[in-house]
Amino acid sequence: MKHGAGGEKMRQLLDSFVLAKFDKDVGDVPLSALDDSGIVDDLVLTIDGHTVKPLFFPGGDIGSLSVAGTINDVVVMGARPVALALGFVMEEGLDLEILERVTNSISKVSREAGVPIMTGDTKVVEKGAIDELVVTTAGIGVRSEALEHNFEVIGQYRQTDERWVRDSGLREGDKIIVTGTVGDHGIAVLSCREGYGFESDVVSDAQPLNKMIEKALRVGGIVAMKDPTRGGLANTLNEFGEKSGVGIQIEEGQIPMNPTVHAASEMLGIDPLEIGNEGKVVMGVLPEMADAVLECLRKTPEGVQSSIIGEATNEVKGVVMKTLVGGRRIVEPPIGDPIPRIC
Amino acid sequence: MKHGAGGEKMRQLLDSFVLAKFDKDVGDVPLSALDDSGIVDDLVLTIDGHTVKPLFFPGGDIGSLSVAGTINDVVVMGARPVALALGFVMEEGLDLEILERVTNSISKVSREAGVPIMTGDTKVVEKGAIDELVVTTAGIGVRSEALEHNFEVIGQYRQTDERWVRDSGLREGDKIIVTGTVGDHGIAVLSCREGYGFESDVVSDAQPLNKMIEKALRVGGIVAMKDPTRGGLANTLNEFGEKSGVGIQIEEGQIPMNPTVHAASEMLGIDPLEIGNEGKVVMGVLPEMADAVLECLRKTPEGVQSSIIGEATNEVKGVVMKTLVGGRRIVEPPIGDPIPRIC
Repeated sequence: MKHGAGGEKMRQLLDSFVLAKFDKDVGDVPLSALDDSGIVDDLVLTIDGHTVKPLFFPGGDIGSLSVAGTINDVVVMGARPVALALGFVMEEGLDLEILERVTNSISKVSREAGVPIMTGDTKVVEKGAIDELVVTTAGIGVRSEALEHNFEVIGQYRQTDERWVRDSGLREGDKIIVTGTVGDHGIAVLSCREGYGFESDVVSDAQPLNKMIEKALRVGGIVAMKDPTRGGLANTLNEFGEKSGVGIQIEEGQIPMNPTVHAASEMLGIDPLEIGNEGKVVMGVLPEMADAVLECLRKTPEGVQSSIIGEATNEVKGVVMKTLVGGRRIVEPPIGDPIPRIC
Repeated sequence: MKHGAGGEKMRQLLDSFVLAKFDKDVGDVPLSALDDSGIVDDLVLTIDGHTVKPLFFPGGDIGSLSVAGTINDVVVMGARPVALALGFVMEEGLDLEILERVTNSISKVSREAGVPIMTGDTKVVEKGAIDELVVTTAGIGVRSEALEHNFEVIGQYRQTDERWVRDSGLREGDKIIVTGTVGDHGIAVLSCREGYGFESDVVSDAQPLNKMIEKALRVGGIVAMKDPTRGGLANTLNEFGEKSGVGIQIEEGQIPMNPTVHAASEMLGIDPLEIGNEGKVVMGVLPEMADAVLECLRKTPEGVQSSIIGEATNEVKGVVMKTLVGGRRIVEPPIGDPIPRIC
């Protein structure tokens, strides 16, 4: 299970089986960069399989999750998502009411985000060959005015050849912003899972962030972006640091967190920074622009709880967190996933 | 199982659950057209889930099938495929040798076709939650010079507003070409399936057709195209006829078929015209250009056995076949799929 969890184990699997076989260096953002999407001919392409269990959870379902997750993978490259494709694999005998609820949800989220479902594919397999329903979503995105503006602003402060927002764009001094509370999605899914069920007011944050990010790009100065899904904030920050070749220091007290998520994590013995999110972005922003971007984010419904949690610095190696009690701890990249099958 | 098989039952499912919910009429080739791909902003997007059983079969495997199938869905819109995205959902404990063979195969076919894998996603689910491996592939395509030329040629003979090759493009008198033998893929997969295993020299035709179709478009005059996958030739011809509002008459004696496929179909009591193919295209061509297109196709390695099998005509309703013995029979759209899980 650890191979699919988004941490170090998955990286090893990708390295040995995927990257070794395919043309790693084709395109503007090649496969070898392991960004959230690939880019060729100025088109962003992404794909995401969803196997969340249960299919319905507080604040969302496999449908809303699929649409939000795929839109967000396009969005964090700085692109404007223009269309989605849906691939359903269903177990024979799947309750049609389930299918109806899921497609309703897909429809609603896609409409609200303004990103239409353009094509789809449906396969039915015999009972037992699959656990109810797997939804795989692909998305395409294109360059936008907001993205061009973002790089114009960056160009005023720093020389750059980049045309897309990459994991590798962070430089010393850049501020790290997270656009809201972390850990909600994983805890929400877990709270309703058989055998784990516990009372909780936490709902999933699964939501498309294209509108919020477009506004932030129009302020400008965003040099790196990633949605902290599998592996959570810990994985995202480590990928930023590793790909950008810079250390990152964050402050625990600045990380927005729902108290219930904090309590549930303690109870379950898992690190909330490693829990997957589905409606947050972590970004690196030019120090000169960080306050303006933060202010813009906080004015959006999706980003009200945005916070500057730290900065890129060569004074530390890897990712280091100043804890609430004044200590420091290394935030390691997660080895596996504390909560499997949440996306 | 019939819901996923590509016939009438699937159409009902799509109608009630998918089309009813989504924005049907966005884009140049909207979802409501149920073509092989959707088109928005001159970008072609397609997605395809693969659940073939067994994963390896004579002439191919789930990897080559995924790449070929997705490329071909882009190609039959007349587009040039530029990139693919791969979504793997794997069962925990899947033999890594299987994964290696599949990725090797994906790599090989993608390189030969010149269409790179740009991005991917991997999910692992617990043992029993999925039958070994599901591969979902998405592809994007763009307009090409060959496509522009095709419509210039069409414009010399017929007024048209179309810019893409659609299922609905057929008019009375247009010739129907199939680019090779039908039924091979389904029979090849079935021949090695547990409980069905029989001696057979049939290998799957799974192959990307982008190079062959580009050459044919450069001749020009292709008004409709579809790859006869699920539901086979019978389904494709019925979709052509229904969407174009014209009858189709074909001659049994002109349909290329491997004698073993013919014999196996008789033995199994299934109609070879309903068996899925993975390396063939059915096209409608202007009568004035049909011989030139046929000659071009026959010069390609993929299309050596191409044949003109009939034409669009208002003299019949639906799809009618003149049989070898001189009778006529209606070729109905398949209700289900004679061989499940072949793609």
